[in-house]
Amino acid sequence: MPVVRRFPESTGEMSTFMNYTYQSFNFRSRQQARPFYDLVASIAAEEFGHIELVATAINTMLTGAADGEPGEVGDLSAVKGVRNTQHFIAGGAGALVQDSNAKPWNGDYVFASGDLVEDLTHNFFLETGARNNKLKVYEMVEHPAARALTGYLLVRGGVHQVAYARALERLTGADLMKLFPSPRIPTDKIPECQPHIQRGEHLKLYRFSPDDYQELAAVFNGPHPETGEELTIAEQIHPEGAPAFDLPAQPAVFAPGPDPEMIAEVAAKLRSAAGLPEQPTGVVANDGDGNGSVIGKVKDALT
Amino acid sequence: MPVVRRFPESTGEMSTFMNYTYQSFNFRSRQQARPFYDLVASIAAEEFGHIELVATAINTMLTGAADGEPGEVGDLSAVKGVRNTQHFIAGGAGALVQDSNAKPWNGDYVFASGDLVEDLTHNFFLETGARNNKLKVYEMVEHPAARALTGYLLVRGGVHQVAYARALERLTGADLMKLFPSPRIPTDKIPECQPHIQRGEHLKLYRFSPDDYQELAAVFNGPHPETGEELTIAEQIHPEGAPAFDLPAQPAVFAPGPDPEMIAEVAAKLRSAAGLPEQPTGVVANDGDGNGSVIGKVKDALT
Amino acid sequence: MPVVRRFPESTGEMSTFMNYTYQSFNFRSRQQARPFYDLVASIAAEEFGHIELVATAINTMLTGAADGEPGEVGDLSAVKGVRNTQHFIAGGAGALVQDSNAKPWNGDYVFASGDLVEDLTHNFFLETGARNNKLKVYEMVEHPAARALTGYLLVRGGVHQVAYARALERLTGADLMKLFPSPRIPTDKIPECQPHIQRGEHLKLYRFSPDDYQELAAVFNGPHPETGEELTIAEQIHPEGAPAFDLPAQPAVFAPGPDPEMIAEVAAKLRSAAGLPEQPTGVVANDGDGNGSVIGKVKDALT
Amino acid sequence: MPVVRRFPESTGEMSTFMNYTYQSFNFRSRQQARPFYDLVASIAAEEFGHIELVATAINTMLTGAADGEPGEVGDLSAVKGVRNTQHFIAGGAGALVQDSNAKPWNGDYVFASGDLVEDLTHNFFLETGARNNKLKVYEMVEHPAARALTGYLLVRGGVHQVAYARALERLTGADLMKLFPSPRIPTDKIPECQPHIQRGEHLKLYRFSPDDYQELAAVFNGPHPETGEELTIAEQIHPEGAPAFDLPAQPAVFAPGPDPEMIAEVAAKLRSAAGLPEQPTGVVANDGDGNGSVIGKVKDALT
Amino acid sequence: MPVVRRFPESTGEMSTFMNYTYQSFNFRSRQQARPFYDLVASIAAEEFGHIELVATAINTMLTGAADGEPGEVGDLSAVKGVRNTQHFIAGGAGALVQDSNAKPWNGDYVFASGDLVEDLTHNFFLETGARNNKLKVYEMVEHPAARALTGYLLVRGGVHQVAYARALERLTGADLMKLFPSPRIPTDKIPECQPHIQRGEHLKLYRFSPDDYQELAAVFNGPHPETGEELTIAEQIHPEGAPAFDLPAQPAVFAPGPDPEMIAEVAAKLRSAAGLPEQPTGVVANDGDGNGSVIGKVKDALT
Amino acid sequence: MPVVRRFPESTGEMSTFMNYTYQSFNFRSRQQARPFYDLVASIAAEEFGHIELVATAINTMLTGAADGEPGEVGDLSAVKGVRNTQHFIAGGAGALVQDSNAKPWNGDYVFASGDLVEDLTHNFFLETGARNNKLKVYEMVEHPAARALTGYLLVRGGVHQVAYARALERLTGADLMKLFPSPRIPTDKIPECQPHIQRGEHLKLYRFSPDDYQELAAVFNGPHPETGEELTIAEQIHPEGAPAFDLPAQPAVFAPGPDPEMIAEVAAKLRSAAGLPEQPTGVVANDGDGNGSVIGKVKDALT
Repeated sequence: MPVVRRFPESTGEMSTFMNYTYQSFNFRSRQQARPFYDLVASIAAEEFGHIELVATAINTMLTGAADGEPGEVGDLSAVKGVRNTQHFIAGGAGALVQDSNAKPWNGDYVFASGDLVEDLTHNFFLETGARNNKLKVYEMVEHPAARALTGYLLVRGGVHQVAYARALERLTGADLMKLFPSPRIPTDKIPECQPHIQRGEHLKLYRFSPDDYQELAAVFNGPHPETGEELTIAEQIHPEGAPAFDLPAQPAVFAPGPDPEMIAEVAAKLRSAAGLPEQPTGVVANDGDGNGSVIGKVKDALT
Repeated sequence: MPVVRRFPESTGEMSTFMNYTYQSFNFRSRQQARPFYDLVASIAAEEFGHIELVATAINTMLTGAADGEPGEVGDLSAVKGVRNTQHFIAGGAGALVQDSNAKPWNGDYVFASGDLVEDLTHNFFLETGARNNKLKVYEMVEHPAARALTGYLLVRGGVHQVAYARALERLTGADLMKLFPSPRIPTDKIPECQPHIQRGEHLKLYRFSPDDYQELAAVFNGPHPETGEELTIAEQIHPEGAPAFDLPAQPAVFAPGPDPEMIAEVAAKLRSAAGLPEQPTGVVANDGDGNGSVIGKVKDALT
Repeated sequence: MPVVRRFPESTGEMSTFMNYTYQSFNFRSRQQARPFYDLVASIAAEEFGHIELVATAINTMLTGAADGEPGEVGDLSAVKGVRNTQHFIAGGAGALVQDSNAKPWNGDYVFASGDLVEDLTHNFFLETGARNNKLKVYEMVEHPAARALTGYLLVRGGVHQVAYARALERLTGADLMKLFPSPRIPTDKIPECQPHIQRGEHLKLYRFSPDDYQELAAVFNGPHPETGEELTIAEQIHPEGAPAFDLPAQPAVFAPGPDPEMIAEVAAKLRSAAGLPEQPTGVVANDGDGNGSVIGKVKDALT
Repeated sequence: MPVVRRFPESTGEMSTFMNYTYQSFNFRSRQQARPFYDLVASIAAEEFGHIELVATAINTMLTGAADGEPGEVGDLSAVKGVRNTQHFIAGGAGALVQDSNAKPWNGDYVFASGDLVEDLTHNFFLETGARNNKLKVYEMVEHPAARALTGYLLVRGGVHQVAYARALERLTGADLMKLFPSPRIPTDKIPECQPHIQRGEHLKLYRFSPDDYQELAAVFNGPHPETGEELTIAEQIHPEGAPAFDLPAQPAVFAPGPDPEMIAEVAAKLRSAAGLPEQPTGVVANDGDGNGSVIGKVKDALT
Repeated sequence: MPVVRRFPESTGEMSTFMNYTYQSFNFRSRQQARPFYDLVASIAAEEFGHIELVATAINTMLTGAADGEPGEVGDLSAVKGVRNTQHFIAGGAGALVQDSNAKPWNGDYVFASGDLVEDLTHNFFLETGARNNKLKVYEMVEHPAARALTGYLLVRGGVHQVAYARALERLTGADLMKLFPSPRIPTDKIPECQPHIQRGEHLKLYRFSPDDYQELAAVFNGPHPETGEELTIAEQIHPEGAPAFDLPAQPAVFAPGPDPEMIAEVAAKLRSAAGLPEQPTGVVANDGDGNGSVIGKVKDALT
Repeated sequence: MPVVRRFPESTGEMSTFMNYTYQSFNFRSRQQARPFYDLVASIAAEEFGHIELVATAINTMLTGAADGEPGEVGDLSAVKGVRNTQHFIAGGAGALVQDSNAKPWNGDYVFASGDLVEDLTHNFFLETGARNNKLKVYEMVEHPAARALTGYLLVRGGVHQVAYARALERLTGADLMKLFPSPRIPTDKIPECQPHIQRGEHLKLYRFSPDDYQELAAVFNGPHPETGEELTIAEQIHPEGAPAFDLPAQPAVFAPGPDPEMIAEVAAKLRSAAGLPEQPTGVVANDGDGNGSVIGKVKDALT
């Protein structure tokens, strides 16, 4: 099944990421078919950010699910009865490349025939199925953070759904805009989509460096099928990935170990020996206030 | 099986890419365990380049495998008897996310326990198995391009194998260097590894922007277990991905379509309408001379 | 992968058969959405005939592949080296529910969301992928019988591709006809499609009894996107399934047993004891001349 | 595993349906082995009705499981915690081709060696396992509708179990009747089997048109192993499939869409344009009173 | 994933059993590499005992889960809502070769490259992952019997982890002892490990007959990395497998049948006819007091 | 599919081994149902010997398939084009737990319902399918060693087929002997079965120690269905496993390493340090002349 978008596990975004990635790897006659290549490749790049975003959300939500001392009876008894107990045994409090039934993502979910019309048809169908599934997920989850995440992904997935339909139109002349919205429920009906719509996130595609994907605009333009607003290429390059929190250690599942202080001490000594400054250079994780970000809402909702 | 490095299909590099990617996503206490996070995350980034490199090699090698007019009897008769005929039916002349037996890569190949000692142990084992498999592939393939690619990946995989062993040493104090080489055959015995060894590629880890992974050097240092030379962090950031050729159309497998000129014409019109210059801006594919590059050798060998 | 149409094994037709069957089982508000229900259900019925047709072709082609006496060394040595030796060990000279790589068809290939717009979108995509794959198969096979079968299935699959696109048009107003042909190669370019096009098989949908599917015409009408001819509902009900030959026994693979005469004798005695006439009543298999039929050509080509 | 009869999902009946279907497709020397061919083929035809029956039961039972407005938070919160949440995300309120653990049915469950003695041995074993599993399901379910369905399938499955054993007897002379009942618990102990036993459903095989399968009686005769009553061929042809209800729309899962009235309106216009009468011709779904039918009981129990 | 030790289902021990078994089957130059062969082969033999031990624990724990009369409504209603209902439908009250998500063990979990250094590296990693998973299982389960079983397997698995690390040391000179404990939590912190540690079970490898594996001591020696005590080869050969209880019949799941007395009667008659003594010769199951044994504790805890 | 006996890969014997093993683990009321328990458990024990036998045959046959120096181009070029190239990359010259299409054995092939009548029915069917598949393998292979191995396994599998049918007869009274032979071709028609028939191997079940399985004779007795000779329990206990050769190193696939002498030297030093005699104690592998043994023929045929 092509669209098995089994969010909130990360398999849904895995499918979009890997489909567009391999379609871009396999793209023949790139220069001649340039704007189409740019379209597929730039969306692939954004989807990598989405697998990180989903994983971050899972990691954040699982923080605290297994509190306690390592090796203590009962630390994990709270999750003994959940659907996917194996997740906790194999992955502790981290994301795995599987859906909520523990079925791993697999490479047969990638469709890459090489035929541009057909691959765009597939991608439009993939995004349509993804939107269907995310709407159901939205109806299912109650946690404000999960709803916030769904709202964000609905908006961005909606842009990709439009982008592939528009590309098909440009290539064949067929008018596909009347297929929107599919499913036939307006995106702006979802409250959690509103903040992103107000920022115009439903209208933009991104580039990832000043030099790349300069020809997106040749395909991605014209009116948005639901709102009539003009589709655009973002002036700014895409913000880097999803901001990740520095998630606290979970010693009961040995992440990053049953004695995280010991690891921190070793790290400090190694850094000192290498002549690095006392404070870590740069940040690989922010301090977690996450003002205004999607994940900020995830965290805010949890505390 | 963790290391199923079924190169020249892309599943081997898929395993290293996805393992390190999810381990970095799930990494807890990043700032405190900083140099270790940088190590896993930077190698993940390099491995993304490797899945592109392998896909490019496959795409290059398949060019011409299905020459002819679309819809002509016999165009694909040359591949009717090969092991994985389905590859040509599903993927045409492009790479798929499967091994040479058509078995798709799947998410259970990802090991991400969250325990740093254990994940590093896994990664050392994964790279060891990968080296074993690549050595056998080297013994098996005859095409100079395939051997060149294997040689390059053996050298870079060897660096990652050392990196994870060294990280384990730094963390636990256990001396693992005597495990090298594993398998117990020196890398420099392979002629196709020589050019890369001479450029010092067996000694370096890379960063991917001026700002990232600044603390790699706290872990990745000391003598190389086989040569005694000092391990270093490359001064230059990593060259961008693998240089991709602008692979010619293969109309017989409809890539990018049975009539590629028609697609090119549409693209030209769209570009013109968008006010883009006549020549495509920037390059998404080089012109294929590939001087000195690994893939250049792939192509040279084929022509 | 949704369309894994791995013909000449029967998985391709299995996917279309099972998708439309379960979509019809799950169809809600059938009476109100009547013409659409009739469309999906009637195509499902035709696809059952196609899995029989493909199985019959396989059975016919395998006849003689394992000649000889049961238990004699060498009877199957001719197939020891083929790609799917297991086929002969598990299935003898018969069709199995797997592709040519021995990968079984599975239920995840069925997409049945319940959303009519989305399921029709899927079905259009499924038929598009199926057409792509069958065109490649056509380019690959050399046997006149295999080409004849492909030609027939291309024509009928093409009708289904149009039917789902037209249904989407009727439901949403989007003009999809400019997507045809997809892949962009005219069906009538294939010589083996000609006889069926000349009989108008590229224009008709069928009903299966005088009473069923009477409302097909409300959706399936208008001009054919490639030829401009009017789409119609066949006046005659669909001919019953595919005419099956009475395939000869293959004692070396024990089908229907190593001693088929013994089985025939038992059958004769049982029939006699039950008061049945000496000649079997009716026919469950024709005599194999197959005048004019697709499979007739399969057999003719083999003898 | 051959008998994985994971009812109330439809994989159990899928296995019997597909096994007998492919055995009949692959049957060699049909005319000579005629009564045996008729036996396998006619039971295959009945099993198609059973996959529809099981799907209908699932669809009926899921009606109302996801009530509410499309896109409303909470519509699906009631099923967030069930074992197979993915079922609701992928299939909404409809049946999928998988068991209750979301494991899809696959083609390796089909056994079709071509050897008549062996295939009959398999089929007897398959039906035995199916009876075992259905008895456990009977002990497990509490809903009267589910028990009614199980009772019906136990009776019909019991007939098939006897049929294959009797065919083996006729072919080999081995007396298999002492193996009944297997498991060794009399069918008439189950109250829900009684109505069907009283109608003689435990004794009959069916034909599906006046012309087909006329030779069944040559094999299927003699005393029933549990009751001693004479096995017979039904004088009437089999009632058509399972009567399906016109299941109400479920807008919250977009089946047939979030706005079913819109679809009904489009359908009405298309019908009118095609000159069809105001009321739909014929019925593709009954009005749901289901007097006396198995599914009638399913529905009655739910209302 | 290599170590998917999904205890308390039996797949974890299946992985260790089958890995070492096939590594011993495939071992080349056994006599020359003798102590290493003995190590792998003797641990394989112990692991067979562990799959029996885990199966016995599952069988014991499931006793009573489905009490009642065969064919009675409600007998299995208590397990209708559990995660793996299919277990009860397919396996009744017995162990199956799958994990708690119903995912079957498969042969790709076996790693057997033939390269001794690499296979030992794998085995050390496999045991490390197994220890991680068992520690989490320990934190999860509450039943004293399950904790007792986990404690025993932690101790024995710990010996195997040391054994493979020591063998690598002996072969390469690399000092691996500083990797212990991994995960970094001392085994003797777990109360349920204490009885086995006090009996010295954390220090011994076993032989299985007076003649076999005489050369183990050449590799398995030196100090234990956690306690400093000397590793030894047990003077006594390994006690035979796990003592199995004569588990009572479970007629509601037809094990060994819905009427176990009938089976017992037939057995008695057959034994008498064969001239066997009235009391069964020897014991295939003990009487269940299980004094002092691990399983004894399992049973004690349940009664 | 239950019987997927994909010999000469080891999955066929894996299925019989694991089915009977888990049926014996899960056997309830063992003492009361004693002779039946002994039957299943003793055949399980013999089947373990068969997986070793098949693995040994594979290892022997692969010896020399990859001759050459480690790391030399071309060493494995001879197997680049074979069906299962991955076998050589993953397993070198050793057996893996997969069939010839690289499909791994999996736990769903185990049928263990707990119902004795049903499990015996399954086992009879499993052995019947296994006999069918082995007969086809016999017709396929040409190598005298492969034919010799097939002949041996046909004879022993035939005994197990009879044993399960006889057990069913004893338990139910049904006369199953007329089902033999199945497939209906006499075993003694196969020349390679003759030596084993002449030694009476077609008539005997074995015990594995002087104490075990003493009650086999209560079930396994009476005339052999094909020859009329009396079935017996062997007076001698079963010869230990399959005699394994000390297979030579294969340095080109790094088994046991690229430099086997180095491993032998380390082993010699370790043995000396442990006070072991200069010559290895006992034998873990014979010297390979294999007089009269099945595997002896395998090796003889290869040299």
